[in-house]
Amino acid sequence: MPQITDAPANSFKRSACPLANSLEIFGDKWSLLIVRDIYFGKHRYNDFAQSPEKIPTNILAERLRKLISHGIIQKVPYQQRPVRYSYELTEKGEGLLPIIREIVNWGQSHIEGTRMMKRKQAEEVT
Amino acid sequence: MPQITDAPANSFKRSACPLANSLEIFGDKWSLLIVRDIYFGKHRYNDFAQSPEKIPTNILAERLRKLISHGIIQKVPYQQRPVRYSYELTEKGEGLLPIIREIVNWGQSHIEGTRMMKRKQAEEVT
Repeated sequence: MPQITDAPANSFKRSACPLANSLEIFGDKWSLLIVRDIYFGKHRYNDFAQSPEKIPTNILAERLRKLISHGIIQKVPYQQRPVRYSYELTEKGEGLLPIIREIVNWGQSHIEGTRMMKRKQAEEVT
Repeated sequence: MPQITDAPANSFKRSACPLANSLEIFGDKWSLLIVRDIYFGKHRYNDFAQSPEKIPTNILAERLRKLISHGIIQKVPYQQRPVRYSYELTEKGEGLLPIIREIVNWGQSHIEGTRMMKRKQAEEVT
């Protein structure tokens, strides 16, 4: 059986590959859409829930927790009693934008009829 | 309720966003690892199965089918009786490489201890 010779024991779930470990964090259908939404100016739980892709709220809550735990987004209270949070990209989260841009380029080139939501449209649908 | 004003009716599962539609195709923990493997010179089913991340074979079979159906990879018979296939990237599949590079950059910058498998290492573990 092949050995995982390039990963220190126990330090990585699958391998030391930066691609594999990154996908472990945001390799799903939703995480990067949340990052997109924040970049587009959405910052609240209900804003994300109302995006056109209609993320199920249980998945949304889980993804927000995961992205926070990996330091990609942070939540900042903007109101007390009841406390309400605004979700912001960290520097690490902003580092995902070049990935999103490349995916958008690929999608526009290879999936007919797709088009980037403009910031204005993104706001209209909230 | 907000309307999906920017997507023609019935044409997209979630929205017309190129990011959402791209993630519908390869937004998972495995698809881009298969593309990585082919780029690294692996071309056979067993090669993918033996990569360090140990993709479960049922998931591998499903992902290969999906990537073929979207024109990202193609399978070419290299042997008859029994027929055996080599998996190759199409031009559309090669278009994913800039995305992979950006993810690798992000992973190397933000996940401590990750390192890119070299082509030689990739071959050794098969």
